[in-house]
Amino acid sequence: MVKVDLNCDMGESFGTYVKGTDEQILPYVTSANIACGFHAGDASTMRKTVKLALGHNVRLGAHPGLQDLIGFGRRSMDLSFDEAYDLVQYQVGALMGIVKAEGGHLQHVKAHGALYNMAAGNEEIANGIAKAVYDIDDQLILFGLAGSKLIEAGEAVGLQTASEVFADRTYQNNGMLTSRREANALIEDVNVASEQVIHMVTEHTVKTVQSKDIAIQADTVCIHGDGAHALAFAKQVREQVEAAGITVQAFK
Amino acid sequence: MVKVDLNCDMGESFGTYVKGTDEQILPYVTSANIACGFHAGDASTMRKTVKLALGHNVRLGAHPGLQDLIGFGRRSMDLSFDEAYDLVQYQVGALMGIVKAEGGHLQHVKAHGALYNMAAGNEEIANGIAKAVYDIDDQLILFGLAGSKLIEAGEAVGLQTASEVFADRTYQNNGMLTSRREANALIEDVNVASEQVIHMVTEHTVKTVQSKDIAIQADTVCIHGDGAHALAFAKQVREQVEAAGITVQAFK
Amino acid sequence: MVKVDLNCDMGESFGTYVKGTDEQILPYVTSANIACGFHAGDASTMRKTVKLALGHNVRLGAHPGLQDLIGFGRRSMDLSFDEAYDLVQYQVGALMGIVKAEGGHLQHVKAHGALYNMAAGNEEIANGIAKAVYDIDDQLILFGLAGSKLIEAGEAVGLQTASEVFADRTYQNNGMLTSRREANALIEDVNVASEQVIHMVTEHTVKTVQSKDIAIQADTVCIHGDGAHALAFAKQVREQVEAAGITVQAFK
Amino acid sequence: MVKVDLNCDMGESFGTYVKGTDEQILPYVTSANIACGFHAGDASTMRKTVKLALGHNVRLGAHPGLQDLIGFGRRSMDLSFDEAYDLVQYQVGALMGIVKAEGGHLQHVKAHGALYNMAAGNEEIANGIAKAVYDIDDQLILFGLAGSKLIEAGEAVGLQTASEVFADRTYQNNGMLTSRREANALIEDVNVASEQVIHMVTEHTVKTVQSKDIAIQADTVCIHGDGAHALAFAKQVREQVEAAGITVQAFK
Repeated sequence: MVKVDLNCDMGESFGTYVKGTDEQILPYVTSANIACGFHAGDASTMRKTVKLALGHNVRLGAHPGLQDLIGFGRRSMDLSFDEAYDLVQYQVGALMGIVKAEGGHLQHVKAHGALYNMAAGNEEIANGIAKAVYDIDDQLILFGLAGSKLIEAGEAVGLQTASEVFADRTYQNNGMLTSRREANALIEDVNVASEQVIHMVTEHTVKTVQSKDIAIQADTVCIHGDGAHALAFAKQVREQVEAAGITVQAFK
Repeated sequence: MVKVDLNCDMGESFGTYVKGTDEQILPYVTSANIACGFHAGDASTMRKTVKLALGHNVRLGAHPGLQDLIGFGRRSMDLSFDEAYDLVQYQVGALMGIVKAEGGHLQHVKAHGALYNMAAGNEEIANGIAKAVYDIDDQLILFGLAGSKLIEAGEAVGLQTASEVFADRTYQNNGMLTSRREANALIEDVNVASEQVIHMVTEHTVKTVQSKDIAIQADTVCIHGDGAHALAFAKQVREQVEAAGITVQAFK
Repeated sequence: MVKVDLNCDMGESFGTYVKGTDEQILPYVTSANIACGFHAGDASTMRKTVKLALGHNVRLGAHPGLQDLIGFGRRSMDLSFDEAYDLVQYQVGALMGIVKAEGGHLQHVKAHGALYNMAAGNEEIANGIAKAVYDIDDQLILFGLAGSKLIEAGEAVGLQTASEVFADRTYQNNGMLTSRREANALIEDVNVASEQVIHMVTEHTVKTVQSKDIAIQADTVCIHGDGAHALAFAKQVREQVEAAGITVQAFK
Repeated sequence: MVKVDLNCDMGESFGTYVKGTDEQILPYVTSANIACGFHAGDASTMRKTVKLALGHNVRLGAHPGLQDLIGFGRRSMDLSFDEAYDLVQYQVGALMGIVKAEGGHLQHVKAHGALYNMAAGNEEIANGIAKAVYDIDDQLILFGLAGSKLIEAGEAVGLQTASEVFADRTYQNNGMLTSRREANALIEDVNVASEQVIHMVTEHTVKTVQSKDIAIQADTVCIHGDGAHALAFAKQVREQVEAAGITVQAFK
């Protein structure tokens, strides 16, 4: 059976500030990455999001980020192995406590924003994150960019990993995403996006912007929960992926 | 066997800011209340403190506080049941993750500063804290002021509780501490302080500032870790308590 | 000439979080209370809001709040004279710098949320705020609840004050607002609200929920910028107030 | 008259956390760089430090840093021109308000930690800082590393600048400081350090670790306020500099 997981970032509200469309996007995804209070989210938003995801039978994941609320964790910064290790473990633990109190179970961890991007290429940070996750619970699945240092670090430490791909982003010959600063970074046509996902899942390759077919592992697809067309996009990707005979399901 | 636990607040450094004398006080206490990042502490200070306490065979507890770093969690504020529940569970979970990664085990939870004081008299907050602790791990011991609403709430929810008394504070006829605004709030003579502890532990009563003997339950004694004479005070209280034939030991 | 100022809280976005409808409400008000980064707002939101208000020829005011971003400054907390003084002056200064850089001029200061409410009844906090404002610029106008301790404190220290009234809130015989916990706290009919404003401005009295006419000073009216009907409400209040022959204008 | 300014970072305490030895170091310096609440400091610490400096007739400067309290502003991070502009202006304004209330006058602005280092080499950030300072008060003096982009940016925008040199750091042939990661980064012998200062001030050159004499402008010398030997070091540098016939004085 060919299968894939669809994941979405959630729980990014903070205090009285509202962000995202968690409730509407939940029917289309199988794994939820829940912000843990550093770049977004707070204890009560985390609980609310856990309950929502459990209600939709969507698997729960921690989505730790940099301690940069004002920058939404999107600004890369100097970070040591220890700093990465500590901030991930603190946030994962905090969510784990809430998940336990709500009768759920944590499936995975996916780093957010600049932390995710830095972990893709920086071995020290990748190792810090992977070890932090392993040490808190070696049954957690580590999500990371397909082909990244983070996936390597997760495997090296003994974690199950999930290679993440993007429906709406184009790829370079080195397997990395085209920078958002480039004009051709985004795929706006949902049919093209769905086709890319289906191709990655069934053929294990992706056509780069340089028109080369490169190998790629596609265990989970990132679905965006905000933006004008996010909901329609999510719905169509899911429908087309399923229409292609691929089973959409989480890992556990 | 007559016995008592000695506890001390710890891990109150933050980033490059140093507070407390954790390493020196650890030989004299049996339970450590570790700040969890809201009123003090941060992920790396928490880890360091967990390691230190484990190294001294001192039991680990979470010390959650209000989200008021600049006020060190000492300013009381409006708080609902849900807010108390959420902030305690988030902080306890965060520490639990770190404790688990370090191979330890969490023994107890003791609220900090204004949260502790509000929980002593405010039923809603007391219930929020007690339920948050029970829901994350019903084997945790809830520390609270002897005779307080928090101890009642802990028992009502089904938690083991530990009634806390103070060596260096005087008591009122209603069982509450004399306000620090009063001249006779503090006991500065360590012999008097030790005698008060011994009396509370062995006789289950304390003489109030109004010279009345009132009933008090003394399961654990709060030892202060900062201030000029903290270390000498801690050392002498422990020695005198042990000299009186009381076994000083933690709960688990 | 009978006149009144209409003010609205603004600049309450934070980082990537958006709040309020500043641009739409600006045509209907004459004074803007701009959040200063503690309960809401940040340096770049402050600048953006200053520019917007200047573009609409709306007067600029600082809107300092408690250092409680997650609670949006709405939770009352213990605060000393010095703490009130310091947090107000820091925030007013920060906005003043931005206003100066943008070529504007600060007209007034209005405390936010719990700080506003505490200052209405607590003399120490009222004095701290008034003195902080006076010491940074004695030409600033201090906004406060009509009949409050804050207005008294402002006058005592030598500041020009502006007594604030509410279009959509009912009053008690003691001149205070009916608590929002009461069913009759809010006026939802915009005609009734406009009529109340016109009455307060022209007759200097307001009819309380106990049907008594009490004296009230109405220099400025608080207009709410969020909520479903905020814009329509603001537009109608302004139109009806002007139709009654009252000049709507700021103080400077 | 040959002269030089001695400056020191101050006001780096936060809430109940104490850092630095401001009161003891003030007799030896002529300019104080006061933390503004982002990487360190808070409104009440700022006021206390302003009063202390005024009491010692030491000139006042703002010391804005990155919004990274836990990292003490020492971790470099992605920052745009606008972000640099906004965070500097907010912090300078906040201090300016407090300085005005205390009857003082702001002399200069010196960026802190990672912001200072990034501004030395990154033109965008340098320009953001320089313009922010100029726009809030074009009479402020901009401190920056001698030979840095920040000094260039300050001059380009029309500000008076002060080139900063270090007594206890060694220099590279390109005029930059030897990285602290190198063994020979620090000068621990106070006589060598004083000699380096005297040479830079009188000869306008410095001998690099590669033994080359390079040109350097030395308007102000950074004196460190913490560390074991900071006070003795400061005292001796000042004495030896004055003994060499150099007048130690601030700019205004």
